[in-house]
Amino acid sequence: MKVFVIGVGLIGGSLAKDFKKHLEDVTIFGIDLNEENLNKAIELGVVDEKAHLNDVAQADCVILSVPVDVSSVIIEDVLNLVKDDAIVFDVGSTKFQICKQVRNHPKRRNFLATHPIAGTEFSGAEAALEGLFEGKVNIISEVEKTAFKLQEWALEVFKKIGMRIRYMDPVAHDKHIAYVSHLSHISSFMLGKTVIEKEQNERDIFDLAGSGFESTVRLAKSSPQMWTPIFKQNKAFVLESLEEYIVNLNNFKNFIQQDDYQAVHDEMLNTNRIKEILNGINKKK
Amino acid sequence: MKVFVIGVGLIGGSLAKDFKKHLEDVTIFGIDLNEENLNKAIELGVVDEKAHLNDVAQADCVILSVPVDVSSVIIEDVLNLVKDDAIVFDVGSTKFQICKQVRNHPKRRNFLATHPIAGTEFSGAEAALEGLFEGKVNIISEVEKTAFKLQEWALEVFKKIGMRIRYMDPVAHDKHIAYVSHLSHISSFMLGKTVIEKEQNERDIFDLAGSGFESTVRLAKSSPQMWTPIFKQNKAFVLESLEEYIVNLNNFKNFIQQDDYQAVHDEMLNTNRIKEILNGINKKK
Repeated sequence: MKVFVIGVGLIGGSLAKDFKKHLEDVTIFGIDLNEENLNKAIELGVVDEKAHLNDVAQADCVILSVPVDVSSVIIEDVLNLVKDDAIVFDVGSTKFQICKQVRNHPKRRNFLATHPIAGTEFSGAEAALEGLFEGKVNIISEVEKTAFKLQEWALEVFKKIGMRIRYMDPVAHDKHIAYVSHLSHISSFMLGKTVIEKEQNERDIFDLAGSGFESTVRLAKSSPQMWTPIFKQNKAFVLESLEEYIVNLNNFKNFIQQDDYQAVHDEMLNTNRIKEILNGINKKK
Repeated sequence: MKVFVIGVGLIGGSLAKDFKKHLEDVTIFGIDLNEENLNKAIELGVVDEKAHLNDVAQADCVILSVPVDVSSVIIEDVLNLVKDDAIVFDVGSTKFQICKQVRNHPKRRNFLATHPIAGTEFSGAEAALEGLFEGKVNIISEVEKTAFKLQEWALEVFKKIGMRIRYMDPVAHDKHIAYVSHLSHISSFMLGKTVIEKEQNERDIFDLAGSGFESTVRLAKSSPQMWTPIFKQNKAFVLESLEEYIVNLNNFKNFIQQDDYQAVHDEMLNTNRIKEILNGINKKK
């Protein structure tokens, strides 16, 4: 079968690797605006052949793994081009916008909206990892709008590469993911910014920062090209979560300012139950 | 030699393990208000014998590894009790308060103020790890106020267990560490709080949170008993860093609110250079 990956980065490239490993007779065609990245993907064996957008007319499966603003621009063209029995799925971190956009498309039933909760802070074809999706969740939105046979095929493939499926409507997805993913990125980026601004002498950062800082600021390495359109498309929920975060930080600041250390203690103690929540995540891995 | 560890937790316990590994003829005496923790430490072989505070009169070396408010309460008693050639060092995350407190103590020269930048989010004797300090920085404040022979001995030991030494005055220490450590903990705790508050249905957190959230919220597992007195003792610098963090978050929020996505992008791009800073940290490990 012919699988076209549009955007051969961390997610697209990792899917390509897993598809080749778990499915028979797969040829991966890579489409990427960044020629250098595409050459790298060929060199690394992540994709077998270079292709152009118009070539998706030959595809059995199209993976749309570009920043969400680019997905919005090309999804309709891709659906217009593909064969009647092809499946097109996206992997973006927002689901409302893309679902809305294809709602009335004549080939809506060829499209499946997915969001694999997997990744690292790295990007590009070099960041692609075999087995990245093992034990991870894949959120699928509006599954009922996809042709039954294509749903079935996709679910089988997702299971083969180790994913657990969870169904969620696009609005609930975008709301929840604002809290557990988008907000984490902002908190991390702004932590990095605050420390960089303060430390004029970088040697001091190098030497004093321990693994705690490293872990908290890790997401600040993420790609602005990928994250800017996510914040744009999920503006309302991102703002809501960010406002609540700032309120909590201000309250904590006020407790310290007023020397109410009992309250400072209790805030932390109550939040310690994140331990059990994270254990819950890890048990499922 | 007789080494007394007051507070047999993550740091004290890990030091005990490394002292036993790297030094000859060491007996570790454990002192801990938590009897259960002390029994655990004996059971795990982290300490050899239980002891009481008054027993430090026999010590060659005393490690003060209790929360910083407890250090403040007992440091003078400990110095009063120890032999003239004993060394007492603390490992707390604030250095100004303890240095101020011992400034005029007749046994000031028996004290060394240290802060090993090492740890995990876990606590208690069970969290003690051999080799925890390998490649890590140990910040020493006011080294010139410690007797030369005791400095020399301590530096040799710290080197044996793999630490790199950095000298810093107590105020500079407390200011820098507010940014690279204390602020990270607050940002993480409040992120955890915001998400927990929002998600009434915990299943959704379990399933949607990926490794990014996990990494950013890791420090929210930390001990409130240890962290409350740190924020108290370092109030001014913690508030300063927290205020700057909140300003940065508010600016980022305003850029999103005003649809200024170029600014959103640039904020993230400028912060991406945290990559090089973190690579710098890792190279030194």
